Amino acid sequence: MAGVGMHKCGRYPEKTCSELAVVAAVNALDDANVPWGDVQAAYASHVAQGVSVGEAICEKLGLTGIPILNVENACASGSTAVREAFYAVGHGVYDVVLVIGVEKMGRGVLGGAGEEGGLERLLGLNVMPALYALKANEHMHKYGTTKEQMAKVSVKNHKNGCLNPYSHFQKEFTVEEVLASRMICDPITLLQCCPTSDGAAAAVICAEDVVRKYNYKTKVFIAGTALQTEKYGSEQDLTSRTAQVAYEMAGLGPKDISLAEVHDAFTIGEILHYESLGFCPRGEGGRLIDEGRTEISGDIPVNPSGGLQSRGHPLGMTGVAQVCEVVWQLRGEAQGRQVKDPRVGLTHTQGAGGVCSVNIFVR
Amino acid sequence: MAGVGMHKCGRYPEKTCSELAVVAAVNALDDANVPWGDVQAAYASHVAQGVSVGEAICEKLGLTGIPILNVENACASGSTAVREAFYAVGHGVYDVVLVIGVEKMGRGVLGGAGEEGGLERLLGLNVMPALYALKANEHMHKYGTTKEQMAKVSVKNHKNGCLNPYSHFQKEFTVEEVLASRMICDPITLLQCCPTSDGAAAAVICAEDVVRKYNYKTKVFIAGTALQTEKYGSEQDLTSRTAQVAYEMAGLGPKDISLAEVHDAFTIGEILHYESLGFCPRGEGGRLIDEGRTEISGDIPVNPSGGLQSRGHPLGMTGVAQVCEVVWQLRGEAQGRQVKDPRVGLTHTQGAGGVCSVNIFVR
Repeated sequence: MAGVGMHKCGRYPEKTCSELAVVAAVNALDDANVPWGDVQAAYASHVAQGVSVGEAICEKLGLTGIPILNVENACASGSTAVREAFYAVGHGVYDVVLVIGVEKMGRGVLGGAGEEGGLERLLGLNVMPALYALKANEHMHKYGTTKEQMAKVSVKNHKNGCLNPYSHFQKEFTVEEVLASRMICDPITLLQCCPTSDGAAAAVICAEDVVRKYNYKTKVFIAGTALQTEKYGSEQDLTSRTAQVAYEMAGLGPKDISLAEVHDAFTIGEILHYESLGFCPRGEGGRLIDEGRTEISGDIPVNPSGGLQSRGHPLGMTGVAQVCEVVWQLRGEAQGRQVKDPRVGLTHTQGAGGVCSVNIFVR
Repeated sequence: MAGVGMHKCGRYPEKTCSELAVVAAVNALDDANVPWGDVQAAYASHVAQGVSVGEAICEKLGLTGIPILNVENACASGSTAVREAFYAVGHGVYDVVLVIGVEKMGRGVLGGAGEEGGLERLLGLNVMPALYALKANEHMHKYGTTKEQMAKVSVKNHKNGCLNPYSHFQKEFTVEEVLASRMICDPITLLQCCPTSDGAAAAVICAEDVVRKYNYKTKVFIAGTALQTEKYGSEQDLTSRTAQVAYEMAGLGPKDISLAEVHDAFTIGEILHYESLGFCPRGEGGRLIDEGRTEISGDIPVNPSGGLQSRGHPLGMTGVAQVCEVVWQLRGEAQGRQVKDPRVGLTHTQGAGGVCSVNIFVR
């Protein structure tokens, strides 16, 4: 990971999608000390920004003629693009590539996948808060997880977000405020949903044997990548299976993870992912947040960036934004929100349509 | 190329995008003799069909949990997906993958790329017939190419399409009829524009060392792949440069090509591509069609399938549909439209936003 960069999340009606993306790309190229003319391919990730968006972004950087392609995988789009880029570089197709994740979001509740007339839509399950509310109620029923525990995820991530200049929101909330905010879909209240944000993130990935040509400070490498889709089973099974593939590839396990950026689009998500990623046994996710172990100062910090809850969730950006945070953390550059001496960082995204991505980074 | 399959192009308001795609996928899997359960990853190509469409398609085939991703590159989406899949298999990431290209098109004139407020849109150049009309007028002015020569591309491809059961249209036209059809953007008449069609195509790509496990008749391999985007220069420069990269990778040249499926969204396109792909010198594309050399019986048959002019141009499908035709031709299975004893086939797509893809297949 030669360099990373972001455009602050927020609402930017006056900017185009490619204008946001170019800021992130230039920041990543600067961070990597890689001139744009040396980039040999570009992977753009976005969900609903139109046709040939990657080409439009790169046109603004300068027409160099390189291969460019657009990758979509719902909320896992950014992490899927990172994976494609990693494999291309890892196998010697290119030495230097740029990954760009970007989204300008529409208004209203985060919709999901499912075809017109399909079962998900008929059941109302293409609307994400409804889907996560079902998962929350199931977890409360099976394991005794409480509304307060879920609210604590929002409290923690909003607190972390105050320390992240790229977050859409920098504001702390109490458990009481989170629970008292407007009900969206019982038990999920407004302050337990990620905000609707625009933003962009970028990363430069170089082959190990050329990266030193650009940047002597680089010390973050991709150790494992997994992309999996649903089988018959729960979302937790999907995440566990994906994590397993990534852990095996990296030769690491949950106990080796110094920090994780996970898909907390809704607070119950983070609790489910604690368990699925192996940070605690099934059913004990609520206890993990209660004990403060996933705080920045805890033994397994989760979403030190503030996560989707606070940074926002520009769909195509998220997977790349997580990588930015992990790289900054592993380099010790996360300033006020720095995790102590991290060695291994994990990113996790979960997308509509039943797709899950886990990438593992080491220094 | 272990197997290929298609869903006939046409207008299918009663079918969903994934219903079209599943027919093509099952045909390709049957052709390859590969059970769906053996497929290790899927690449879906579409331009504007929504979120996680690849996942929705594969859900209909059965939830096996494999990596699935969606690739977009305007009109070059399908060929970009083939390239991604080829690299993944070629480098041992997977042994067996499925590529699916699909699109249900909207109504009206084929739009293009370009951001809201961007120069292309302000100039009206995001509307494809306008862009190609400029190219046609330039070619007529520079090289003396005639309206009759352009019309002959439509005549040839509609004749070929009559022999292709997957084509949207099976109807012959005369040069006079093509020229007398409704003017869309001078000099491009209606019968020189690809029709607006829905459709799907699929291909199974296997590693060379496992393909024989499934299918002893397979004898088509990918020899070269190139994806390039605009530099400052003409579209012909872009195509020439892309072809050059693919030719070099394959260790072949234009004289080795037995047949080509090229991007004839508008008739002038095919004439330009004759020249850019090296089938004749610059400015002599009109003469090539006059001399009948690109007919099925000619020495360099182009678009024996009927091309986009006759098959239609479901955006995400086209690049994969071209591969189907090349595989059938190289296997000698193209029936009434069979090119004589072909050894090497080339596919070429040109996408909005300045992207070009050339893939070369050998037997």
